[in-house]
Amino acid sequence: MKKLLIGSLLVTFTAIPAIAATAFSDGKDAIEYRQNAFQLIRHNTGDIGDMLQGKVKFDQARLQRRVDALVGLSTLPWEGFTVAGANQASGDAKAEIWTDNADFLSKAEKLQTAAKALQAAAQTADQAKIKAAFMDFRGNCKACHEKYKAD
Amino acid sequence: MKKLLIGSLLVTFTAIPAIAATAFSDGKDAIEYRQNAFQLIRHNTGDIGDMLQGKVKFDQARLQRRVDALVGLSTLPWEGFTVAGANQASGDAKAEIWTDNADFLSKAEKLQTAAKALQAAAQTADQAKIKAAFMDFRGNCKACHEKYKAD
Repeated sequence: MKKLLIGSLLVTFTAIPAIAATAFSDGKDAIEYRQNAFQLIRHNTGDIGDMLQGKVKFDQARLQRRVDALVGLSTLPWEGFTVAGANQASGDAKAEIWTDNADFLSKAEKLQTAAKALQAAAQTADQAKIKAAFMDFRGNCKACHEKYKAD
Repeated sequence: MKKLLIGSLLVTFTAIPAIAATAFSDGKDAIEYRQNAFQLIRHNTGDIGDMLQGKVKFDQARLQRRVDALVGLSTLPWEGFTVAGANQASGDAKAEIWTDNADFLSKAEKLQTAAKALQAAAQTADQAKIKAAFMDFRGNCKACHEKYKAD
């Protein structure tokens, strides 16, 4: 298991106090963490979209599994933006994430709220409600990507 | 968003019916999915270990966040072993995963159960209980790695 070094890194990086208790060995480790989380979010979101658009057969249990995953996964990436060095060399993370950090974290919070609303909608098994909640979830992805993602 | 192609792939791969409803474009996509999930599990597990060993300051809220993450994350990797092609070129996944698949999935199930037990232990805030549950969780990781992971 990779050795985790924290402490001195965090002392110099207190801009995000809510999740400052992190555990990355360095910025690269933090970047990989958030990218891993975003990839899993992408996959689960994509499959829900495909089901709702009829590209694959709709399956209530599968939908439920996806939205349950998204509720957990949507809490994860943000920690990966908190470590010193994590704002470097990540390819598509824009500098505004750190210069306008309160807004960024507010959008992250909204995504988590939207995931929970999607989960509640999925539990009704009402496709109109599920679609509306999914559109809102996707809208929250997009709103953040437009401002903070370079690609 | 990456286009997800399923259907014909699944028809030829029904060995794991419980999670046959998947959505990977190909084996590579499935391998990345499970590797992303395992990396997030590794990180959250490592941080709990560091806290319990006193390498970093113990923080109940941080522990709770980690175990909550593990409960969700421990459900994810297994889907990445179900797609045709996912048993190739993954580096450290041994062929026994597919030749002894029922045992593999049984171990996957045990890990998820251990994660939930760890979550319950964390909620008691009793460090002896947390340590015991964490050792059991780690033991379940190890038991599966020993048989099914090459590295």
